[in-house]
Amino acid sequence: MTTTRSAGVSEELEPHGRSAKKRRAILDAATEVFLQKGYLATNMDEIAALAAVSKQTVYKNFPSKETLFVEIVSSVTNRASDRVHTEMPDLAEGEDVAEYLRRYAYRQLTTVLTPRVMQLRRLVIGEVGRFPELAKALFDGGPGRAIAAMAVLFERLADHGLLAIDDPAVAASQFNWLIMGEPLNRVMLLGDDAIPKPAALRRHAAAGVRVFLASYGK
Amino acid sequence: MTTTRSAGVSEELEPHGRSAKKRRAILDAATEVFLQKGYLATNMDEIAALAAVSKQTVYKNFPSKETLFVEIVSSVTNRASDRVHTEMPDLAEGEDVAEYLRRYAYRQLTTVLTPRVMQLRRLVIGEVGRFPELAKALFDGGPGRAIAAMAVLFERLADHGLLAIDDPAVAASQFNWLIMGEPLNRVMLLGDDAIPKPAALRRHAAAGVRVFLASYGK
Repeated sequence: MTTTRSAGVSEELEPHGRSAKKRRAILDAATEVFLQKGYLATNMDEIAALAAVSKQTVYKNFPSKETLFVEIVSSVTNRASDRVHTEMPDLAEGEDVAEYLRRYAYRQLTTVLTPRVMQLRRLVIGEVGRFPELAKALFDGGPGRAIAAMAVLFERLADHGLLAIDDPAVAASQFNWLIMGEPLNRVMLLGDDAIPKPAALRRHAAAGVRVFLASYGK
Repeated sequence: MTTTRSAGVSEELEPHGRSAKKRRAILDAATEVFLQKGYLATNMDEIAALAAVSKQTVYKNFPSKETLFVEIVSSVTNRASDRVHTEMPDLAEGEDVAEYLRRYAYRQLTTVLTPRVMQLRRLVIGEVGRFPELAKALFDGGPGRAIAAMAVLFERLADHGLLAIDDPAVAASQFNWLIMGEPLNRVMLLGDDAIPKPAALRRHAAAGVRVFLASYGK
């Protein structure tokens, strides 16, 4: 959808633009209310009020509180995954694979270890018993997607003779948890103030990459 | 406290034995109610009723719902840690270090990945915002204690020339998350039915140990 095209059909697109804006306002309001009150205590009236739309508009966009929450989880986790995996530039010509993996790991750490993602993850984990679908959405869109993307990357690096990997899925999962495990556990349990500073994250990423490459480097 | 000794002081010990029994009944009842209803919805009356003691007895043992819950978290996580770390037999004479680490990893996996520990961890994570002390107790008694014990073990193995480790704390954390990260995340998000079968856990442990030893083996 280019600017030229939308300029030509502005009358058709403007109502669509308005409803997209409303949809966005509902999602933002809902995220705020869910994170503040928890899943169970949140109701659609409050979300409508905060988004400044009618309750009918909320229901027209999201038939239930659950679909709304699944949409939030998917959009937050997918946005984070995209930032790490889709938008991560390829290995530069002549760049060291260790340096590349350190950059990759650091990018993943700083994207996932944010108060918003961490709060959402805590909320979802606390509700696994009652609402397993929410956690399934987070599992698929978050770590599941991240590890699948990493497996593709590692296979490509192996094809280029830069890694020696027999099972890319296993290697990707190991890389992921070498990098994410320690700080994720810390922040999940000790709260957002425990998010490590950039220098500590870089040291942590470097140590994880060193272990990974001792096994899978050339 | 041997049988002989307690037989000799039975009059003194019996009341103590009764109150220890009551304390245990309160803890068991509380664990059940907390896991079923969540932290916030649990009240002391229900715990007293289920434990078949008076509410005063509950309060005499645990001045608040919070101290009661911290006690549960500490006792469950400490019992799990002890099983893995304190009770794990030393490397047998002539035993391969790889085989030993696979046993260690498997023991840790099967001890931590139980419905009770997982449900408690989910409950605690869901309440980090409101009750940070609960999560702190789980962090210290669970992964914190596990990784500290592992660091001591790795240092001993290094002293015996079986591992080459410069920073035992870093190596222990890496080992822990290579082993625990993937299945813990899976079970936390997908529920207790996602606890892997023994054969899958053994394969997973072996793959993690292989990567660890590529970096730290001799």
